[in-house]
Amino acid sequence: MKTETTIQGLSASLNPARSARKIIGFVPTMGNLHQGHLNLVREARKLCDVVVVSIFVNPIQFGPNEDFDNYPRTLEQDQQLLADVGCDIVFAPTVEQMYGNKPRLTNISVSGITNDLCGLQRPGHFDGVAVVVTKLFNIVQPNYAFFGQKDYQQLAVIRQFVQDLNIPLEVIGVPIARSEDGLALSSRNGYLSEQERATAPVIFQSLKTAEQQLHAGKTLEEALAGIRQTLTDAGLVMDYVEARTPELQKIDEFNQDVVILIAAKLGKTRLIDNLQIKYAAG
Amino acid sequence: MKTETTIQGLSASLNPARSARKIIGFVPTMGNLHQGHLNLVREARKLCDVVVVSIFVNPIQFGPNEDFDNYPRTLEQDQQLLADVGCDIVFAPTVEQMYGNKPRLTNISVSGITNDLCGLQRPGHFDGVAVVVTKLFNIVQPNYAFFGQKDYQQLAVIRQFVQDLNIPLEVIGVPIARSEDGLALSSRNGYLSEQERATAPVIFQSLKTAEQQLHAGKTLEEALAGIRQTLTDAGLVMDYVEARTPELQKIDEFNQDVVILIAAKLGKTRLIDNLQIKYAAG
Repeated sequence: MKTETTIQGLSASLNPARSARKIIGFVPTMGNLHQGHLNLVREARKLCDVVVVSIFVNPIQFGPNEDFDNYPRTLEQDQQLLADVGCDIVFAPTVEQMYGNKPRLTNISVSGITNDLCGLQRPGHFDGVAVVVTKLFNIVQPNYAFFGQKDYQQLAVIRQFVQDLNIPLEVIGVPIARSEDGLALSSRNGYLSEQERATAPVIFQSLKTAEQQLHAGKTLEEALAGIRQTLTDAGLVMDYVEARTPELQKIDEFNQDVVILIAAKLGKTRLIDNLQIKYAAG
Repeated sequence: MKTETTIQGLSASLNPARSARKIIGFVPTMGNLHQGHLNLVREARKLCDVVVVSIFVNPIQFGPNEDFDNYPRTLEQDQQLLADVGCDIVFAPTVEQMYGNKPRLTNISVSGITNDLCGLQRPGHFDGVAVVVTKLFNIVQPNYAFFGQKDYQQLAVIRQFVQDLNIPLEVIGVPIARSEDGLALSSRNGYLSEQERATAPVIFQSLKTAEQQLHAGKTLEEALAGIRQTLTDAGLVMDYVEARTPELQKIDEFNQDVVILIAAKLGKTRLIDNLQIKYAAG
């Protein structure tokens, strides 16, 4: 496995694969890798000849009061994990390598699906994601790109701009990896105290309970109210608990497949999770 | 020469060239071709193995009161001209092929250099250009893309987002093609009455006079005032007459290379032109 820190170095490493028309798979990450990321790499390994993983903590998707400076950076450990799951090339550029010295004037925005849910609490976040992912796509030029379904809204945003801009690759969404107790894996779980970590699985439990309730005939409103009560009782402070269509359109009734999305703070740590719930017409 | 009207057809036509790693050159146009466009194709022909020209009147770069519906569409004549200068593939998609049936939610904006000059009179114009050019780049995936310097601000916008988004191609700016009397070639010249056509060369004449004045020691302010007077006397209604650095930054003194940019209406027709003027330190 090679590690490249410059765009030029990465291009040189990828050139033989491109010339040979090999299938290139790409997994963009911010590092501090867990099994969720590694699942993306395993999925890429299955479909592609060459697997590239980027590790880049992208400053422009963090708000001024967010955790950019403190975001965990664990490159050596990440490299070891990636080598073990068969990654071919790690791309770990500096901020300067990605954004250069000249001011960036270009922005990419996706309307409609970015101005609520996480977008409401994190203005500009999805623009920052769209810009960096587009840059990485143009640098790596993969055939397939792999993203976790945990960042459900992010995945929807990426699918949207890839379609709207005719970016020549296929986006693959990979199911959420969870601890045995159900907590969605996240680099931010490392911020949790022991007690908070013991509480956190309530998020997924509340989603599974809502699923059972919906299948038992309760309304969406009732199921969402149940989640809100459970999270409040457990001491979480909710950003949102919402039901949407799989394309993130608002929905009032459980009359088609839905996804329930949660963002909530446990102490100082903001956690997100979601569950897609199938509608089986009676 | 082939003409393709679908993205799929174009990809199929380009696949052999891509597999053989041939150099692909791309000239995006809105059709109604003149020698200015054909110069772009000739330049592409020199540098590239395969030359693709797109003909697409892009609705999203026209304002509600602009000439989208009336913009001249002359595909057969364009095809003949392109065949004569050695174009390999014409890509002439429909609006539906480019924008599909689903709503487009993604926008690309370039701040700083789009909110004045032509951007002031044409809000959203450069966003529409950035989106369609990015889409075309992703569809054609050229090594080189050729644009005329007549649309100087457009060329600057394209260079900027190509750099900011790491789009993997080189942008080539090609000098303005002019009639013998100096008028910059433009599809919109066809809108001019005989009398207006006789007046129109005053635009370029005023730019050349300004160049002489600057080299003779007059100030930028004096040279610009001279242009404004000349155009007003000739009956043109100015949008702007401005001097900028080659990167379109504002400039007060002639102490480096400058570009003087003009947009003015002659009757109902909006014409633009520009001249780059070298600074030769004394």
